[in-house]
Amino acid sequence: MRRVIIDCDPGHDDAISIILAAYSDRIHIEGITTVAGNVEVEKTTLNALRVCELLGLDVPVARGAEQPLVKTREFAPDIHGDSGLDGPQLPEVPKKTAIEQHAVDFIIEKVLESDGEITLVPTGPLTNIALAIQKEPTIVEKIKEIVLMGGGTFGNWTPTAEFNIYVDAEAAEIVFNCGVPVTMFGLDVTHQAITTPAILDRINSIETGVSEFVRDLLVYFTKTYKEVFGFEGAPIHDACTIAYLIDESIFEFEKVRVDIETKGEYTYGTTCVDRLHVTGREPNVKFAHSLDFEKFWVLLLSALK
Amino acid sequence: MRRVIIDCDPGHDDAISIILAAYSDRIHIEGITTVAGNVEVEKTTLNALRVCELLGLDVPVARGAEQPLVKTREFAPDIHGDSGLDGPQLPEVPKKTAIEQHAVDFIIEKVLESDGEITLVPTGPLTNIALAIQKEPTIVEKIKEIVLMGGGTFGNWTPTAEFNIYVDAEAAEIVFNCGVPVTMFGLDVTHQAITTPAILDRINSIETGVSEFVRDLLVYFTKTYKEVFGFEGAPIHDACTIAYLIDESIFEFEKVRVDIETKGEYTYGTTCVDRLHVTGREPNVKFAHSLDFEKFWVLLLSALK
Amino acid sequence: MRRVIIDCDPGHDDAISIILAAYSDRIHIEGITTVAGNVEVEKTTLNALRVCELLGLDVPVARGAEQPLVKTREFAPDIHGDSGLDGPQLPEVPKKTAIEQHAVDFIIEKVLESDGEITLVPTGPLTNIALAIQKEPTIVEKIKEIVLMGGGTFGNWTPTAEFNIYVDAEAAEIVFNCGVPVTMFGLDVTHQAITTPAILDRINSIETGVSEFVRDLLVYFTKTYKEVFGFEGAPIHDACTIAYLIDESIFEFEKVRVDIETKGEYTYGTTCVDRLHVTGREPNVKFAHSLDFEKFWVLLLSALK
Amino acid sequence: MRRVIIDCDPGHDDAISIILAAYSDRIHIEGITTVAGNVEVEKTTLNALRVCELLGLDVPVARGAEQPLVKTREFAPDIHGDSGLDGPQLPEVPKKTAIEQHAVDFIIEKVLESDGEITLVPTGPLTNIALAIQKEPTIVEKIKEIVLMGGGTFGNWTPTAEFNIYVDAEAAEIVFNCGVPVTMFGLDVTHQAITTPAILDRINSIETGVSEFVRDLLVYFTKTYKEVFGFEGAPIHDACTIAYLIDESIFEFEKVRVDIETKGEYTYGTTCVDRLHVTGREPNVKFAHSLDFEKFWVLLLSALK
Repeated sequence: MRRVIIDCDPGHDDAISIILAAYSDRIHIEGITTVAGNVEVEKTTLNALRVCELLGLDVPVARGAEQPLVKTREFAPDIHGDSGLDGPQLPEVPKKTAIEQHAVDFIIEKVLESDGEITLVPTGPLTNIALAIQKEPTIVEKIKEIVLMGGGTFGNWTPTAEFNIYVDAEAAEIVFNCGVPVTMFGLDVTHQAITTPAILDRINSIETGVSEFVRDLLVYFTKTYKEVFGFEGAPIHDACTIAYLIDESIFEFEKVRVDIETKGEYTYGTTCVDRLHVTGREPNVKFAHSLDFEKFWVLLLSALK
Repeated sequence: MRRVIIDCDPGHDDAISIILAAYSDRIHIEGITTVAGNVEVEKTTLNALRVCELLGLDVPVARGAEQPLVKTREFAPDIHGDSGLDGPQLPEVPKKTAIEQHAVDFIIEKVLESDGEITLVPTGPLTNIALAIQKEPTIVEKIKEIVLMGGGTFGNWTPTAEFNIYVDAEAAEIVFNCGVPVTMFGLDVTHQAITTPAILDRINSIETGVSEFVRDLLVYFTKTYKEVFGFEGAPIHDACTIAYLIDESIFEFEKVRVDIETKGEYTYGTTCVDRLHVTGREPNVKFAHSLDFEKFWVLLLSALK
Repeated sequence: MRRVIIDCDPGHDDAISIILAAYSDRIHIEGITTVAGNVEVEKTTLNALRVCELLGLDVPVARGAEQPLVKTREFAPDIHGDSGLDGPQLPEVPKKTAIEQHAVDFIIEKVLESDGEITLVPTGPLTNIALAIQKEPTIVEKIKEIVLMGGGTFGNWTPTAEFNIYVDAEAAEIVFNCGVPVTMFGLDVTHQAITTPAILDRINSIETGVSEFVRDLLVYFTKTYKEVFGFEGAPIHDACTIAYLIDESIFEFEKVRVDIETKGEYTYGTTCVDRLHVTGREPNVKFAHSLDFEKFWVLLLSALK
Repeated sequence: MRRVIIDCDPGHDDAISIILAAYSDRIHIEGITTVAGNVEVEKTTLNALRVCELLGLDVPVARGAEQPLVKTREFAPDIHGDSGLDGPQLPEVPKKTAIEQHAVDFIIEKVLESDGEITLVPTGPLTNIALAIQKEPTIVEKIKEIVLMGGGTFGNWTPTAEFNIYVDAEAAEIVFNCGVPVTMFGLDVTHQAITTPAILDRINSIETGVSEFVRDLLVYFTKTYKEVFGFEGAPIHDACTIAYLIDESIFEFEKVRVDIETKGEYTYGTTCVDRLHVTGREPNVKFAHSLDFEKFWVLLLSALK
């Protein structure tokens, strides 16, 4: 049983990530923390609450940072719609509310209490995690693992940078170099975790309330990926993190050095992944480079049943 | 009566700044928050407590950030000695202790409670202030003024950067651009606030417990400035901030644009002070460029009596 | 008939590029200019002369820049050996000598004389081309096309930068933005142009003096790519440029924006190739992304016969 | 007798620098090379020819670079007027013409011929000198000294950068680090070499054709410095270089480390002058920090008589 805090900015694929975790008996969600990313933190917090309500998931939701550490804010409404979760019908005003505690303090408190058993699962910009490390540096010795979605050897927000890292590269620099084991699901692998017509058909054949919600999410997400990037299917980026925590064998990894560019003129937020080992520097990341497509989707679909 | 939080890293001149504030009836110290800077935060916190004990000053002391926002740590033991306050005799283990609350939360709470009356007086790196703004952005509308020691049109830690800004330039970038009125005491003015043999004589002629402590501080500080920089007198940098809050007429100001360099190869931490108005950008800083030497020292010396 | 100046740093694949050009009746080599790159310019010049002598190729060879525009020098002896052309037997001291004229002046003179018919084919760092443009900016209106080997969406010298661009990124920035049509063969396509055991067998079955030379080059090059990068075959990077000028149909292209990073901490020399069109900026490069492997090798092998 | 090549972008103070050199029996002008800077290179070349004609100065004038090494062009018409030499009456179309040879080749040829006796005196951006070093690196062992106007511990074009260095910081980086002894007259000292009403009166009392020309230059220059920067007098920046070569005792110097920033977001072109010796790096520059005002003007005025 992995005890996790999901730090997210739902977001279509964040939502699926939460669902996957909620229905797995190998994951215990200690809490959900929210961050500005795909949309403003007010909206990502509301979306996290909506998803919990839909699932009947009773875990604390703590609102976090509303802006990156240093950079000015940037959002991705083209991809996720104005609400951050456009597509499916959702409870407009959920009864569930966020806890009073700030996400940063929630993370610090849970980690300090836990004796090294908490895994952080950031699927948005890394602002909250970086702030928690800044405020209470001793937590780094007590975090079991950081399993994150972000980066890659190519970009989707700039030619070389992926959205989550680009939005707060200074935070990423802190997290990648903090000393906690980092497992990274970047675009290299998440672009293999895509919807296809066959997959959408298989989801359609499942008849649960949640499957309908997931289908609507995926249909919307597939449409925007087609429009914005010309992709034939949408990558379910964030779900890779939870899929890994349930069944590591879905993915293949290598240990590599990853440095975060925070200074460049064109390359801010680039994750410099040293797959050819040309830097001679010590690896700091467990980098997922490929996945077993069928195994991944079997896991996801089984969660819906 | 100005209500202030002194955010500091004592530090010889920080200590004098606290003394000046403590003895003024125009300043009310709401609390002292500490930060890593001249030395580690454990030591700056201990030093703040020692100074309070010596003065019989009963205000909360809250410990803050132990490392800069993004950069690796850098200290200045050459200037302030291993303890951060070498020179005078000090209570080894003060009875006074720091409060439980983190400096960042103390700042946020006090500012939110205060209805716009709190002035922040940072005399060390700006990490705590930046973290407070990040964690609770709404405080910026409620901070009356930020009166800081840092920067200048030349440097003392690198050829172009001053220590406080250099140690955490990302924090400085956040603070200078947060929208709160910023009054800046940089090296241009603080290098005018120096000890001279005549000044040291005048302090020697005062006979109070505190004057002895101050004399020992200044003698040590003068010695290290001579050794490290070849200066004939030591600048009492940080005390300019409190002197201004007591008597604004000591200083002359101009409104200028100041941008913080966080990217350069040689210029990290430079405050780009646009005194010639060549950028055409809106001023964001009230920049102190000169002081009335006699008035400054009369104020300081009167505090010791 | 394409009139070309080959600007190179031989280099194994540069040598093959020259051979391919020399034996094609669709290419007229106006001259060969040399530059520091794989090894020092003394050696790349000597190697160019040796290759010409071996082929009986009577074209002017002009020596060029011995260091990058701004950066300090960097070489690649691990890949090309100490001579820059280790492996085959070569005339130790060729009878042919370089012309007196500097490469930069040779390029300027030929281009100005030519009425827009000269294509530049740089297969090393872009220093000479950039210097020529700096010294005589009017040449840009008279260069027909720049067909270069360099860059890619990933790196081989750093995690994100390819050797030719990394060695002189400032020169690359000038060349990519000078306004001349640029056709780019980066690692994306050149890593498809690799030697395989089957290909080496086919070369072995050809019996000409040149084929033996080429075989020795490829055997050495294959060995070092195996040792340094763990590759199973060696990419004949530079030959793609000449292959394209002989038969454009070997390759597939797209028009993209490419920006050159010259400022980053980890990303100096990265070519930011906007394949997803996320920058919204005007394309400035014809980017080769794939090749017809069989067609490529048939062309190369036919040159040896 | 110092043999010099004046590399300039006239420019009011460049013109005065040429006049000072022409009338000194301690200076032999080997040639004048021109560069884009205050205005386009066509104009700076025309202005150099005009000044030579006015003085009856028979030296070769060679036109040089029309754009910086890497950066896009920037000019200063606000300061020097549209012609680059607004104010005095000048021969509209001088009979004298520039030589055919490019400035870069002129510099290389003269230096190589000279056996270490040539001093380069750049009073504009350093593009020509950098290109000459790039094209023929062996010249660095044969240049006696580089005596330049540029940089300072503060800026005039940006808050931290002086115009000549800012316009081509990459060129400056090459020149400052090439190994030739560099003597630098930056704003620290040139802002002491200013016109005053008393000085203008003294010039008025001299009655030679040249003095009238100089007076008109200085009146115009004083006016624009007043308008643009609010200065009471205009600094005759460039003339400091020649004044030094005639009488070194006018100036005071210190040996310092100077690094050129080419990467920063706000600090491009800053000369990081390490006057406090905080970098611990080896000095590479003889830095003029003050001048004897009376001695300077006596020298200048004597040239006009």
